[in-house]
Amino acid sequence: MNSQNSVHRAIKVLGISGSLRVGSYNTSLLRAAADLLPEGMTLELFDLAAIPLYNADTEAQGFPPTVRELRERIAAADALLIATPEYNYSIPGVLKNAIDWASRPPHPSPLDSKPTAIVGAGGRVGTARAQLHLRQILMHTNTLLLGRPELFVQRASEQFDAAGNLTNETTREALQAVLEGLAGWTRRLYPVA
Amino acid sequence: MNSQNSVHRAIKVLGISGSLRVGSYNTSLLRAAADLLPEGMTLELFDLAAIPLYNADTEAQGFPPTVRELRERIAAADALLIATPEYNYSIPGVLKNAIDWASRPPHPSPLDSKPTAIVGAGGRVGTARAQLHLRQILMHTNTLLLGRPELFVQRASEQFDAAGNLTNETTREALQAVLEGLAGWTRRLYPVA
Amino acid sequence: MNSQNSVHRAIKVLGISGSLRVGSYNTSLLRAAADLLPEGMTLELFDLAAIPLYNADTEAQGFPPTVRELRERIAAADALLIATPEYNYSIPGVLKNAIDWASRPPHPSPLDSKPTAIVGAGGRVGTARAQLHLRQILMHTNTLLLGRPELFVQRASEQFDAAGNLTNETTREALQAVLEGLAGWTRRLYPVA
Amino acid sequence: MNSQNSVHRAIKVLGISGSLRVGSYNTSLLRAAADLLPEGMTLELFDLAAIPLYNADTEAQGFPPTVRELRERIAAADALLIATPEYNYSIPGVLKNAIDWASRPPHPSPLDSKPTAIVGAGGRVGTARAQLHLRQILMHTNTLLLGRPELFVQRASEQFDAAGNLTNETTREALQAVLEGLAGWTRRLYPVA
Repeated sequence: MNSQNSVHRAIKVLGISGSLRVGSYNTSLLRAAADLLPEGMTLELFDLAAIPLYNADTEAQGFPPTVRELRERIAAADALLIATPEYNYSIPGVLKNAIDWASRPPHPSPLDSKPTAIVGAGGRVGTARAQLHLRQILMHTNTLLLGRPELFVQRASEQFDAAGNLTNETTREALQAVLEGLAGWTRRLYPVA
Repeated sequence: MNSQNSVHRAIKVLGISGSLRVGSYNTSLLRAAADLLPEGMTLELFDLAAIPLYNADTEAQGFPPTVRELRERIAAADALLIATPEYNYSIPGVLKNAIDWASRPPHPSPLDSKPTAIVGAGGRVGTARAQLHLRQILMHTNTLLLGRPELFVQRASEQFDAAGNLTNETTREALQAVLEGLAGWTRRLYPVA
Repeated sequence: MNSQNSVHRAIKVLGISGSLRVGSYNTSLLRAAADLLPEGMTLELFDLAAIPLYNADTEAQGFPPTVRELRERIAAADALLIATPEYNYSIPGVLKNAIDWASRPPHPSPLDSKPTAIVGAGGRVGTARAQLHLRQILMHTNTLLLGRPELFVQRASEQFDAAGNLTNETTREALQAVLEGLAGWTRRLYPVA
Repeated sequence: MNSQNSVHRAIKVLGISGSLRVGSYNTSLLRAAADLLPEGMTLELFDLAAIPLYNADTEAQGFPPTVRELRERIAAADALLIATPEYNYSIPGVLKNAIDWASRPPHPSPLDSKPTAIVGAGGRVGTARAQLHLRQILMHTNTLLLGRPELFVQRASEQFDAAGNLTNETTREALQAVLEGLAGWTRRLYPVA
């Protein structure tokens, strides 16, 4: 990152949702984040719907265009914000598949050394187990995970309105704290003069 | 299961590889298993290449044909044998995605109460971490996992020949022991007169 | 197990709490279980307070008396019921240390092939992450874990009265369902004529 | 950290072994590390043998002296180096128990924000599963884990001589790389002028 007149330039965050459902609480959580950004942070979402299943034979002939775009968008971002549902105690295959593509050589992969925060919206445990799997997975890619604060949005259906707006004020503040944490973590790891 | 003249009928095993690569060591491991079956066990493979990314909106309109076939094949099997690579400390997204589809309602899902053995071929740790994730995941689906023996095929490239034949005799015996363990576990859970 | 006059003999369950605190919710959960046992099941608790830290040099001179007692009590039980708090995303060191001793040779260890149910009382996620670690750990010991139902007692402080009685009726029923599940699982694995 | 004449002051590392065995490979690994320190790094070991089992009732009356010492030594260190065996797919209860004590309030705990590297010496998988559990656990304490390089000392008995000296040159270099990684990670998180 460069600085200009002692002013930090904006931290560009790429948001990735582990759910493809149009009305996904996790995608809605990322949209809510876009409303709650601290100053000096921008957020764009990347949609995983067009990422093919990982296949090393395909990879040997070059990354498919959507995979190339995913990797370039991650590489161009200063930080990642991943919102994951919990399926079967873990992250969705959809999200893991995207990480599998993004983690491939040439090394360092786009995920390497990228400051990243994890959030999730789900049922009784708020995707706590999925987030723990995701933390393990992103340890392998040497992704630099924000430790605290965490966000487990429990009983998601009670926290969003029918249009997908995050209406629970406590959760909005908790999400904001994650974003501020990510900003601080990113600047700590990549200080600008 | 039914019996006939006090003779066990064959245990039908469905084999699933977590890798789509044509020359995959894990798929080769399943092929080797087909050669090493104990008497009274059959093995067929299911290819995950045509399973789409999980999307709840798609599901709401009915399972796609390949998903329906996956679910029916699992339901019709007496037991499962899953061979998983390790990507980023976990199972491939490809395999998790298939489990996500197979785990969906109506409940009990096809994975529920299914006797299942896990094996894997990989690098330095022989997919030990991926197998542990997979065990967690299949706990959620109430799949009945064989505890022992386990099989971690380390340094896979040294154990198969160029045609994908499992040539290492120790590993062949270890694989055979898994198959015998799966037969015993299946009959213990689903005894036939 | 033996039967007498076609009547199942009682299933002897050993209950182990991962907390040494006198007023522990998890110990209280085991006491509540003693009140909710299905017919044909008994429950005794084992207190881990006197188990020393695991040390292989100590072990080489023979198991300490309290460890020997732990191993004998596990061996004599038909099934285990483990109640675990969650400390730092995992089970307490106290509980892990007891498992480390119990898992030692001669093999099969007392934990091997033992039908076991896991429950837990805690805060926001009801020890969900600790239970998942415990399931992994007990996979290694070839302990035969009940898959479903599970029990995550969330916000434990609201579910017990000051004397440690489990007063929440929904949770009492959920605990009863676990006990019935454990009875069925034990009889399935160890059928009696 | 302070600097003097533009020279970094030494990074004080506290080494903790998860094994109490006198001839422990993991303790030996820490001793080997003491020989391989990069310039500007010191290493002292802390022995967990005298840490009592965690008990919240005990804690309510004040930390026992050995626990207080553990917490003070962690607090005084610039970084941690933890060497863990793998018992039952996880870290030893002995190590988890020490972390349970160290993680207690007042917050931030001594483990919070502490740069930390994990290594391990063991059997077939070189404690890979235990290290993964430990990473999860130390996520909860907001400990700042070095991602890469990792060190899995496989078949430890072949890599140390009878006196516990790490004789395998490749492993010595890998350990040295971890120490250099820890130095860089510590200085990145806590830069000195």
